[in-house]
Amino acid sequence: MKVRLEPAPVRGFRFAGVCAGLRNEPGRKDLGLIAADRPVTAAGVFTTNRVKAAPVVVSREHLARSGGTARAVIVNSGCANACTGDEGLQVARDMAAETAALVGCPTEQVLVASTGVIGVSLPIDKIRCGVPAAFHALGADQGPQAARAIMTTDPFPKESTTQISIGGRPASIGGMAKGSGMIEPMMATMLGFVTTDAAVPPPLLDRALREAVNDTFNAITVDGECSTNDCVMLLANGASGVEVDESSYREFVGGLTAVCRELALGIVRGGEGATKLVTVIVTGGATSADARKAAKAIANSPLVKTAIHGGDPNWGRLIAVAGRAGVAFELSRAAVTIGSIVLFRNGRPYDEAAPQAAEYLKGKDLTVSVDLGAGRASSTVWTCDLSAEYVRINADYRT
Amino acid sequence: MKVRLEPAPVRGFRFAGVCAGLRNEPGRKDLGLIAADRPVTAAGVFTTNRVKAAPVVVSREHLARSGGTARAVIVNSGCANACTGDEGLQVARDMAAETAALVGCPTEQVLVASTGVIGVSLPIDKIRCGVPAAFHALGADQGPQAARAIMTTDPFPKESTTQISIGGRPASIGGMAKGSGMIEPMMATMLGFVTTDAAVPPPLLDRALREAVNDTFNAITVDGECSTNDCVMLLANGASGVEVDESSYREFVGGLTAVCRELALGIVRGGEGATKLVTVIVTGGATSADARKAAKAIANSPLVKTAIHGGDPNWGRLIAVAGRAGVAFELSRAAVTIGSIVLFRNGRPYDEAAPQAAEYLKGKDLTVSVDLGAGRASSTVWTCDLSAEYVRINADYRT
Repeated sequence: MKVRLEPAPVRGFRFAGVCAGLRNEPGRKDLGLIAADRPVTAAGVFTTNRVKAAPVVVSREHLARSGGTARAVIVNSGCANACTGDEGLQVARDMAAETAALVGCPTEQVLVASTGVIGVSLPIDKIRCGVPAAFHALGADQGPQAARAIMTTDPFPKESTTQISIGGRPASIGGMAKGSGMIEPMMATMLGFVTTDAAVPPPLLDRALREAVNDTFNAITVDGECSTNDCVMLLANGASGVEVDESSYREFVGGLTAVCRELALGIVRGGEGATKLVTVIVTGGATSADARKAAKAIANSPLVKTAIHGGDPNWGRLIAVAGRAGVAFELSRAAVTIGSIVLFRNGRPYDEAAPQAAEYLKGKDLTVSVDLGAGRASSTVWTCDLSAEYVRINADYRT
Repeated sequence: MKVRLEPAPVRGFRFAGVCAGLRNEPGRKDLGLIAADRPVTAAGVFTTNRVKAAPVVVSREHLARSGGTARAVIVNSGCANACTGDEGLQVARDMAAETAALVGCPTEQVLVASTGVIGVSLPIDKIRCGVPAAFHALGADQGPQAARAIMTTDPFPKESTTQISIGGRPASIGGMAKGSGMIEPMMATMLGFVTTDAAVPPPLLDRALREAVNDTFNAITVDGECSTNDCVMLLANGASGVEVDESSYREFVGGLTAVCRELALGIVRGGEGATKLVTVIVTGGATSADARKAAKAIANSPLVKTAIHGGDPNWGRLIAVAGRAGVAFELSRAAVTIGSIVLFRNGRPYDEAAPQAAEYLKGKDLTVSVDLGAGRASSTVWTCDLSAEYVRINADYRT
């Protein structure tokens, strides 16, 4: 299996990314389109925030009405179309209808996504001009343009592709994602779009997406914030001739998880103000839920994140967070390891290793591990450091 | 009732703050002592972190053994004496024993507290030299010195005093506190010490302290972090001749709450990197627990805190946090008010009011209110903004 940050060569899908003038920056791409050559099976996972943006509401409706099939995904950046009331819902429906008319399919076969500022109206006139432009720009090699069009504060686009082999026949899975701040997806993530040329029946596609998302997009955090617009959508067209069934399900989930992980880690690496990718591994949990809860608490701790930013192997903060995380924790059996350097174990510090750990923390790709000393369950979560740049970005976001 | 930021003129107590050389800064006070002229009733609330520092363990033991009486409190800054194993416990016991020998009381009548870096040994030789120095420096007017000695990253000392009148007789309540980072006390707070010259029986004193702390120290957050060393201790000596019983309990709790609130708000105002004090009021909760949970989620949200830092009336972030807080929330009945300026109500934004709200946010003492639209319960929580200075302080804390 090969994972590359390259355009997705998934047969039977075309992509576009164009400028619809939704942002203040002249020429910046802000409207993306993914179109399948024919109706394909589709699955989606969406934000669990009680406030759901209009495109989330509409895409869920459409997936339900179409029985898990789709022809296209239309997505804009620059405006979240969230908290925009009935008018916002109408705009999301119109956006789907405009796309459906061009692609030539029922409106419910178009999925919609938006990202950007909350509470601002999405100008439908600009969408009406932009959708035909995107339609005419569609191309099999335009995935990178679509990946750029969905970016907001992202410092770089996120794409991933992998090949799987089922019964000796190759199939591809490719994806793109955006997201940099307001990132602690709950059951879903920021925007992510994945395509495959394998054929996957709707129930299996849905199950595979949930499984892959749980250990990838749902295991990352930048700032502990769950957005109103989170969603990951997966389209499968069967163009490779490969059919996924129960016997080949694990192979498919493996490839799908690899693509989702690459995209999810890209989101963290490009987290607002991030300078380091941090893998938080919690072991010794009494339950898996405990291990995940402790890992998330560590990954969201501003004191841990600033210590890592400063290159300080401050194991005391890791222990303090584990202790307040509301999970079973046994100090006498607990351990803290930074990289492969043990700093605390069996109730005593190993401060003589601190200089070595400080040296390790100068790196950009770090692992910190905490053993809760309370059982055998484990969990891995990815986060980034907290820098002054995060504050600058978010203090100035709308100005 | 009068609340002033002045030394506590509480009869029958003496205070000291001296330099014991526990910190790297020459001459900086780092050892505080509070001594009562005779055994007095005492109550304490302590951290709920599963990792409890040695002084927390010892003080709880002493309160239990002494039946809620005490003669003195000895407290150091510069070292938390947390995660220091059996050796740390012995140091905390020795610290109490040294103090008891000078004051002339059983060891269990001395309470101990520490604050500073986790996982570093507290040098008992420096404590052995410092305790006699503190004892000889004791004075009724030395409260401000003690308040300085317990500071770590605090930008200023926190003291508060109030007078209550029971049956026509006046009594005083005075307190001091420290805390600037690692602040979201759970059932207790950072270090806080309160004295009163009213006579209060131990069970009533304990109840009053828990009640006062719940709406003051337990309602603040700087960074969502609960420390290993949090504690608030309350000593009552009866020197005023005023006796508190069930009939005068409310008057006493009122005064105690006023002192605790002043100290708690001082901690937030002096939060690491803080430039603004923010009162978060949540109304319309289905339950009190929901209202408190939503208020804490808002008060800990890095996106809300950075928006306030930048003076951005970004009501969308407030709505998004309320929506992800895991509480009942009805968008169509929800509202966001900044100061007295409504920015969102009945499902629609009032963006025309944004410039006025931005002007309001230039202030230093701010109120943001969110109506969850789901019931009648409410909760108030205090927090501060998140600045680049917070990152700087915590990236460099140990260097």
